[in-house]
Amino acid sequence: MTNVAIVGVSGYTGLELLKILIHHPKFNITYVANSSGEKSILDLHPSLCGIFEAPVMIADAKEIAKCAKLAFLALPHRSSMGFAKELLDLGVKVVDLSADYRLELETYEQHYCPHIDKKNLKKAIYGLPEMYREEIKKSSLVANPGCYPTASILALLPFVDMIDENYPIFIDAKSGVTGAGKKCSNNTHFVSINENIFAYNPFKHRHEPEIVEKLYKKSGKIFDINFVPHLIPASRGEMIDAYMLIKEDIDPIKILKAYYKNEPFIRIFDKPVDIKSCSGTNFCDIFAKCQDKKLYINSTIDNILRGSSSQAIANANLMCGYDESLAIPTIAYVP
Amino acid sequence: MTNVAIVGVSGYTGLELLKILIHHPKFNITYVANSSGEKSILDLHPSLCGIFEAPVMIADAKEIAKCAKLAFLALPHRSSMGFAKELLDLGVKVVDLSADYRLELETYEQHYCPHIDKKNLKKAIYGLPEMYREEIKKSSLVANPGCYPTASILALLPFVDMIDENYPIFIDAKSGVTGAGKKCSNNTHFVSINENIFAYNPFKHRHEPEIVEKLYKKSGKIFDINFVPHLIPASRGEMIDAYMLIKEDIDPIKILKAYYKNEPFIRIFDKPVDIKSCSGTNFCDIFAKCQDKKLYINSTIDNILRGSSSQAIANANLMCGYDESLAIPTIAYVP
Amino acid sequence: MTNVAIVGVSGYTGLELLKILIHHPKFNITYVANSSGEKSILDLHPSLCGIFEAPVMIADAKEIAKCAKLAFLALPHRSSMGFAKELLDLGVKVVDLSADYRLELETYEQHYCPHIDKKNLKKAIYGLPEMYREEIKKSSLVANPGCYPTASILALLPFVDMIDENYPIFIDAKSGVTGAGKKCSNNTHFVSINENIFAYNPFKHRHEPEIVEKLYKKSGKIFDINFVPHLIPASRGEMIDAYMLIKEDIDPIKILKAYYKNEPFIRIFDKPVDIKSCSGTNFCDIFAKCQDKKLYINSTIDNILRGSSSQAIANANLMCGYDESLAIPTIAYVP
Amino acid sequence: MTNVAIVGVSGYTGLELLKILIHHPKFNITYVANSSGEKSILDLHPSLCGIFEAPVMIADAKEIAKCAKLAFLALPHRSSMGFAKELLDLGVKVVDLSADYRLELETYEQHYCPHIDKKNLKKAIYGLPEMYREEIKKSSLVANPGCYPTASILALLPFVDMIDENYPIFIDAKSGVTGAGKKCSNNTHFVSINENIFAYNPFKHRHEPEIVEKLYKKSGKIFDINFVPHLIPASRGEMIDAYMLIKEDIDPIKILKAYYKNEPFIRIFDKPVDIKSCSGTNFCDIFAKCQDKKLYINSTIDNILRGSSSQAIANANLMCGYDESLAIPTIAYVP
Repeated sequence: MTNVAIVGVSGYTGLELLKILIHHPKFNITYVANSSGEKSILDLHPSLCGIFEAPVMIADAKEIAKCAKLAFLALPHRSSMGFAKELLDLGVKVVDLSADYRLELETYEQHYCPHIDKKNLKKAIYGLPEMYREEIKKSSLVANPGCYPTASILALLPFVDMIDENYPIFIDAKSGVTGAGKKCSNNTHFVSINENIFAYNPFKHRHEPEIVEKLYKKSGKIFDINFVPHLIPASRGEMIDAYMLIKEDIDPIKILKAYYKNEPFIRIFDKPVDIKSCSGTNFCDIFAKCQDKKLYINSTIDNILRGSSSQAIANANLMCGYDESLAIPTIAYVP
Repeated sequence: MTNVAIVGVSGYTGLELLKILIHHPKFNITYVANSSGEKSILDLHPSLCGIFEAPVMIADAKEIAKCAKLAFLALPHRSSMGFAKELLDLGVKVVDLSADYRLELETYEQHYCPHIDKKNLKKAIYGLPEMYREEIKKSSLVANPGCYPTASILALLPFVDMIDENYPIFIDAKSGVTGAGKKCSNNTHFVSINENIFAYNPFKHRHEPEIVEKLYKKSGKIFDINFVPHLIPASRGEMIDAYMLIKEDIDPIKILKAYYKNEPFIRIFDKPVDIKSCSGTNFCDIFAKCQDKKLYINSTIDNILRGSSSQAIANANLMCGYDESLAIPTIAYVP
Repeated sequence: MTNVAIVGVSGYTGLELLKILIHHPKFNITYVANSSGEKSILDLHPSLCGIFEAPVMIADAKEIAKCAKLAFLALPHRSSMGFAKELLDLGVKVVDLSADYRLELETYEQHYCPHIDKKNLKKAIYGLPEMYREEIKKSSLVANPGCYPTASILALLPFVDMIDENYPIFIDAKSGVTGAGKKCSNNTHFVSINENIFAYNPFKHRHEPEIVEKLYKKSGKIFDINFVPHLIPASRGEMIDAYMLIKEDIDPIKILKAYYKNEPFIRIFDKPVDIKSCSGTNFCDIFAKCQDKKLYINSTIDNILRGSSSQAIANANLMCGYDESLAIPTIAYVP
Repeated sequence: MTNVAIVGVSGYTGLELLKILIHHPKFNITYVANSSGEKSILDLHPSLCGIFEAPVMIADAKEIAKCAKLAFLALPHRSSMGFAKELLDLGVKVVDLSADYRLELETYEQHYCPHIDKKNLKKAIYGLPEMYREEIKKSSLVANPGCYPTASILALLPFVDMIDENYPIFIDAKSGVTGAGKKCSNNTHFVSINENIFAYNPFKHRHEPEIVEKLYKKSGKIFDINFVPHLIPASRGEMIDAYMLIKEDIDPIKILKAYYKNEPFIRIFDKPVDIKSCSGTNFCDIFAKCQDKKLYINSTIDNILRGSSSQAIANANLMCGYDESLAIPTIAYVP
């Protein structure tokens, strides 16, 4: 058994961490915290009534070091890196769900803010098991990928050698409202998004450079990713529709099946995928189709599981020497 | 390990049975069937891709008897009793999710159709563990309760001695659309129920006599239940709002907590309950409030889990000597 | 033509007033205001782009008196009465959408706050045309009814002589999320109410005494109204399900049809009503059914039209000598 | 006053025609029909109770010719052309909402079926007023555009000279469920599409050649349109996200504003558009943005109004010498 801490337990990803870890056969939750220490688990997440109760602490690295070997940080970027640094110095392994350790220094500072833990940034491993499984196993700091990059990179990876780099890749993404966070805002008001759909930050989302950088690491090619995310009237789930040109005729389903043939959390479908069939799971479902030299790739994930918390726990499983699939959800919430 | 069969695997409750049984540590699915034998599990339930595959048979009692000790029947009423009879004769235990064995003969025939298995009807146990746990353990035929009766009876049971029988009990019920079944109809068309709510069969729903009969069995009193169900724009979940008069001043929360203090799948809340906090689980959540001699009881369940499939498996656990809670879901689908 | 002002143009009811008044053949919008004077109409209500533009003022009674004969006040209670008083002194007619002039002094102060305009409170007419049409025509201050009272009173009025007063009336109400206002809160977050339903303030809603008082005025009887409202995952629309005992056998549909036979905005249906068929209109749709001495009444309205803004304009039509139906919407938003 | 007939009154577009025509100051509905003649208007569209009643006939061209000068055909393709032919021979003007007269013969037969009214096909005018306003005025047969082509063509038209034809145009479209019709199917079942989104017919939708052909007519260029439609959990509304390369740097908002400066039913926004702000209206709302040589265009319409019925009535207005805007809805259904 490994003792683990959850820091940032108030939000949606904090809740998803709890939901999985409560019944995890090897991880034992010994510490939960948020920024204020206010409210009980039952106040924060009434659905856990009778399932889990624990005092919610004000996050304190030293206290964590006393009772946990690994901490999940579900904090906003900026606050996360300060905290991670302290934990790592105290010998606690960290899975960071924020953006703080996902990018190269320069990319990060260009799109977020000045970095205050450059030393650890260099050692951090990008927590996409399909790309870095072996590195994750040896790491003590894993940067859990963003939700859009997870679905986008998994869709594009098998095709990096076939894509025509002279032409842009357009990604039209759709996310459920949990992607906008638990904080109330005009965009997340039921009346604003019900019976509606809208794009936000077209060509300007900070997940765009994350996709570019990771594909470059893998392929040595700088793809021109043009990313337009949308909010849809659904609570959870995320879809990527990627459009691009390829250099030669291919059978995209065959390529997908071959590339991912040993991957436990990738499913290839021969018709368009939907978000409901993977919501509640760690799966990334993928479909693709060509028309002449045009390639369409269509992938879906649960934005707060594969796009955050279940992937974080899969990474923690790897970091602690357990089977990657341990306690990772595979049964979707349908119907 | 106990081998089990699922007959009627195409619908929503069939899918829910699969979702739980796939990872059940003691039950082993050896046979799945629907009425036609057509389509694969993957066609019927694409979300199970990579999780479960098995040939879908045309239901055949003799074949089931060869490979399973217990069968879950998720069939329409009428067809279920013919099939159950055959299975019982062959020594297969049955959990019947239809209405066929829920009622006394007279009540059944008045509200449904002529009964063709009167012998077994007499032996059938009503599968509400909070009422008949010990009887279920010894039974080979359990009639799984209807969804509305489950939520209504659990709400009313603790108060049967306090309710003023001279006054009617009004139950205003709300169900998600899975309650209307997987078959397409005008009422289940997205455009019909989205942004909408409507009552159906006011004072005429066949679950009304089921509630009356079971409360009578427990209390010896014939309550005047008046039931008005509504369809709401949600996929799953069900709420009961019951209104009645009581004979004396009471503290209803205290009564609820005392009555259900040892029950693993009942949660008492001190504010109104919501369907989302128990959807995905076997819980029945209950709140109650008095104003003078008026009592309001507010309960929620997942209509296709506690109201059908997870309760069916809890019953099967009991029938086979396992812990009632084995593999029964307790983590809700929120957010 | 009559010049009118809208004070409180930012919220949902302000928008609904605009939507109707823009094309009203007799009312001319000469002044729009909110509390801050910030933002343009286009910022507040982007859907009106190209349809209506006007400077949004900080509400000022003297300025209104210069340019308008009648003002619609879509303000929170408390603020409304101070403002109404000033306008009335300046000779401006007022339709007040808040609760400030709806109740008798004592009832008001018990449920809201001390009243600061007792003089006008005495003269205010309750703006339910089916009850006070003639009085409204002569009034210069109309208190527009609450949404729940509108649907409840219209449902109960035809039956006041038949209801058994010795027993309580239970009202189980359901409202779309616009009923909770435009302000963001945990309850109005998409993720909180999507796939959900919950009761709030059971037996404690401030619309309860409003219903009691108005029924008393009409019938001389004090009914024991017990009101439980729910929020449902829909943007607009409201349903009332009322349960009670009656003293004698009746044909409720016949009674409804007779009582409302000359009313232009009441529709009687012989099956349960739904909110979508009247959303977008000023109609109140009603169905009723008896079982022995138990009466069930089921009514629906658009909560921000019949429950607020279209009823306000119907009142203004009457106050200004126009036909009550002028510009009042009758075509629902289906499908 | 002009007498008009509606043939195909049962579906969503039939209802939308009724909703507008009922209050149209110049059109008088003298005949309504569907294929079976069964059911009354009230059965078909309960929301019209008290608003409109008329016998529903079995469509008969000769009867129509006796009582109407113009007929709206809201029929499935194939059936529409037979009927239109008969009506035109009898001197009745036709607005055909089906696909039957939208395309050149060859294109039509390739994507639909053999054409049986080639003579009239040659004379039919494509009913997009922004393209063919003058021709529509003189026509007696107008082919009302498809919903996706309406939103796509209006988005692309201003840019035809700037788009780089050497590269494909990708269109990622999203439609509310009314777009899938009133007929029940697995895809339109509430439980299938609620909390979901999925693509259908990627690169294969029959609206694709319609877009190509109309852009060719206008520009002389054959654009490589690649169209992927999605169904979203909303009742009405449609969004187009078009991605392409341009030949030179442009200010797309400026171009849109200039191109559409005199158009009454086009609105240009400087941020992404949403479907709710135009649902209920005849508007097409458009936003666009460039990043280097990549152009993103984002347009929305109400799929059953601008995408069908309100555009049909605007066309009828033009054909009968009335103002195009007469009775055409401009007030959106928000909130």
